[in-house]
Amino acid sequence: MAERITPRNTNYSDWYIDIVTQAKLADYSPVKGSMVIRPRGYALWEKIQSNLDRMFKETGHVNAYFPLLIPQSYLQKEAEHVEGFAPELAVVTHGGGSELEEPLVIRPTSETIIWSMYKKWIQSYRDLPLLINQWANVLRWEKRTRLFLRTSEFLWQEGHTAHASSQEAEEETLRMLEVYKTFAEDYLALPVLTGVKSQSEKFAGAVNTYAIEALMQDKKALQAGTSHFLGQNFAKAFDVTYQTPEGTLDYVWASSWGVSTRLIGALIMAHSDDNGLVLPPRIAPTKAVIVPIFRNKNKDQVLTYARSVFAALQETLGNELNTVIIDEDDSNSPGWKFAEWEMVGVPVRIEIGPRDMENQKVVIVRRDTGEKEIVPAAEAAGRVQQLMEEIQSNLLQRARTFRDQNTFQASTYDEFKAYFNSDGGGGFVTAYWNGDPAVEARVKEETKATIRVLPFGNEETAQGNTCIFTGEPAKYAAVFAKAY
Amino acid sequence: MAERITPRNTNYSDWYIDIVTQAKLADYSPVKGSMVIRPRGYALWEKIQSNLDRMFKETGHVNAYFPLLIPQSYLQKEAEHVEGFAPELAVVTHGGGSELEEPLVIRPTSETIIWSMYKKWIQSYRDLPLLINQWANVLRWEKRTRLFLRTSEFLWQEGHTAHASSQEAEEETLRMLEVYKTFAEDYLALPVLTGVKSQSEKFAGAVNTYAIEALMQDKKALQAGTSHFLGQNFAKAFDVTYQTPEGTLDYVWASSWGVSTRLIGALIMAHSDDNGLVLPPRIAPTKAVIVPIFRNKNKDQVLTYARSVFAALQETLGNELNTVIIDEDDSNSPGWKFAEWEMVGVPVRIEIGPRDMENQKVVIVRRDTGEKEIVPAAEAAGRVQQLMEEIQSNLLQRARTFRDQNTFQASTYDEFKAYFNSDGGGGFVTAYWNGDPAVEARVKEETKATIRVLPFGNEETAQGNTCIFTGEPAKYAAVFAKAY
Ligand SMILES: [Zn+2]
Ligand SMILES: [Zn+2]
Repeated sequence: MAERITPRNTNYSDWYIDIVTQAKLADYSPVKGSMVIRPRGYALWEKIQSNLDRMFKETGHVNAYFPLLIPQSYLQKEAEHVEGFAPELAVVTHGGGSELEEPLVIRPTSETIIWSMYKKWIQSYRDLPLLINQWANVLRWEKRTRLFLRTSEFLWQEGHTAHASSQEAEEETLRMLEVYKTFAEDYLALPVLTGVKSQSEKFAGAVNTYAIEALMQDKKALQAGTSHFLGQNFAKAFDVTYQTPEGTLDYVWASSWGVSTRLIGALIMAHSDDNGLVLPPRIAPTKAVIVPIFRNKNKDQVLTYARSVFAALQETLGNELNTVIIDEDDSNSPGWKFAEWEMVGVPVRIEIGPRDMENQKVVIVRRDTGEKEIVPAAEAAGRVQQLMEEIQSNLLQRARTFRDQNTFQASTYDEFKAYFNSDGGGGFVTAYWNGDPAVEARVKEETKATIRVLPFGNEETAQGNTCIFTGEPAKYAAVFAKAY
Repeated sequence: MAERITPRNTNYSDWYIDIVTQAKLADYSPVKGSMVIRPRGYALWEKIQSNLDRMFKETGHVNAYFPLLIPQSYLQKEAEHVEGFAPELAVVTHGGGSELEEPLVIRPTSETIIWSMYKKWIQSYRDLPLLINQWANVLRWEKRTRLFLRTSEFLWQEGHTAHASSQEAEEETLRMLEVYKTFAEDYLALPVLTGVKSQSEKFAGAVNTYAIEALMQDKKALQAGTSHFLGQNFAKAFDVTYQTPEGTLDYVWASSWGVSTRLIGALIMAHSDDNGLVLPPRIAPTKAVIVPIFRNKNKDQVLTYARSVFAALQETLGNELNTVIIDEDDSNSPGWKFAEWEMVGVPVRIEIGPRDMENQKVVIVRRDTGEKEIVPAAEAAGRVQQLMEEIQSNLLQRARTFRDQNTFQASTYDEFKAYFNSDGGGGFVTAYWNGDPAVEARVKEETKATIRVLPFGNEETAQGNTCIFTGEPAKYAAVFAKAY
């Protein structure tokens, strides 16, 4: 590669942006805060989409599409909702050459427009549950942006479900949290903490927000997905009632849940290294690349041999466009190509030179560890197939070990501060907390650490213990971290 | 169904809207001109998307995502482009709580934003061709809208390719036209005419626009997809040059091409009948429905029998959510259910009652013809599988016959007018034309018929013939129709 990636130790932020831009995952657009997702980045989103979409359908959901533009007045129907989103809205004031009677906002999320439709579609308990998901772009005006992690426009999915009981809606909320956790771990190789958010960190309009939280290599946390129990808040705002089997009327119960292109940022920051992107095989658009090494005199023979290995790999790994690539370009040296394919994160590289050809062997190099092995050509496809599983589980294990090594329990506020203030500090720090939002705010002010989740069962753990910030009886065992 | 569909003969427009709303394909949204695509409609779009996307990838294209918002000044860089789209723009003037320095428009199409990025990405002939597609929402402010056929916001794909030569870009333009034609015929069972548009009907900013045109049951044409040869227009507007192998600089050549959710409208209008939607099996989300017919006393036995047929069908047709449905609901009568499943266009219905159970038979009913056959239960899955192919090809054949019966050649302008003015008139009418846009405009004014395409090779056909509108020598054999 012509350019060099800034090493993580020198500047983690620069390292991240170097990978995103040099691996051509995304680019800055002329509109401030909006990014262009380039083909290599979009291919990751397609992998995320197709796997999640299948998991949504397996859990009974169907897709639909609701309008981009929402009457401004709709957001005002739910008080907390408008308070949360008003500062981030993009407003359309003119359409078709004239000024609009009522301004329209570009959806920052779709609860309001969707619940205005649910009002039309739901009459009876027979219409419930309604389990709808939408793949869409949304826009939240941001002042400080970072490619994938925080952009004004981003792509996401948003599930919006309607139920006949509180219990059913809560079960749905937790079911989808579990789908996100499974997806993050099984596909992105991203171990995540789950739990409920503190009230100050919840979604504007929710009763409770649940989240999956992952730890990045700089020991900062990243919220990778959220699932909200909305109670009857939006049903009341849009007057959506249903007739119960007993003939009475009740407001409908709701959940909503979403993940976005931010997951691509998480994927990059969790696994990549100073040589570029590292991708878990299940999410890698290109699973293996063959780099034939030849000179003019032996070019034809080496290419013929390499192509036979290529054909075998395609048979094993799949022959969709770019699943396996053979890099026959002769304007760059093998060393340049090795660096290039490392940069873009192809999980396995196969080097094939004249000597390998003579011996009927190939050289296989793992992207995650850099390990090389020499394998008989006839076994290459099978070995690469095995490596897909080995690399996938190694990445998850590596990320889990890193997270465990950076997960602490603080017994005092001084100890708590020490975790976050020390050079190279950070991680997930559990601390007993009395549940007071003012204390939470002060800790954030003083340490920049926020509560990422209150893990399931944490209240039992907290019982009989002391809040490390106040000395008062603890109510929660909260997990804190500095976060993206 | 509680409501009745207006028969086609009574009011074709009402018939169309009745089907869209009663089959729950789409609904009106609170924002004028925007529609909600409901799950049943969106499932059709998913089928269209997945098949087209595979065809795009097989022809070497990759997907990417570009910003929704475009600086207003960008549209002005291509003179014809801004003239065509300015009246249809939605304009964002405020973002994040303050007024924007430059207004942003919601993309009506993405040539300008994409070519501003191509300027960054293309330097040398080595960067070409660039074959990028985008799946996205776009917005063109419309005064008169109709669900799927014309809405302010719609979903589509837009391909944007960059090439080193005019010839390559033209080949790409025609290749994608052919992909659209194949898709329309093989999946939507929609026979289409292809050819080039007259200059007055081309895309604003194109050198030439090619289109696929289908005939609806009311004998009006519907433009179902377009592919544009853009020449160097956008490369010049955005100053995108590349270094040739010889070291000189040249402007890049371009194509763009798109189809939209309008295809769903075409699908409905081409095949459906007075009982509701009729879907080609390859695009039908649900391929078969089993309706068990039972009373309380034999419910368990009939359901057990029906479920064994259901399991066999799932094995044959696929067991994804809703591919095969068994309707066990006992709150509606079998007759009500038959009408309901006809309404939503499931290609095959299987009726299973106690007598069928005794005889180890099932009744299979085709949606396209209404034909019933009684088949041994053991052969049901195989027969339904066969019927998928038979129905698919019957629908294409039926639409082709209808089109052929409504395709005419007019030798005089009087004859031409008679085709369009007669009761139940319409269709594709070929006429020799001198090529004068003023004549084209007058014909449109007088008959409402427009040139749909100038078919490939039409200029040769026209040679030596006389323009039916002026008596002058003909230049083209143009195909006219009234159109959506
Ligand atoms: Zn104005
Ligand atoms: Zn203002």
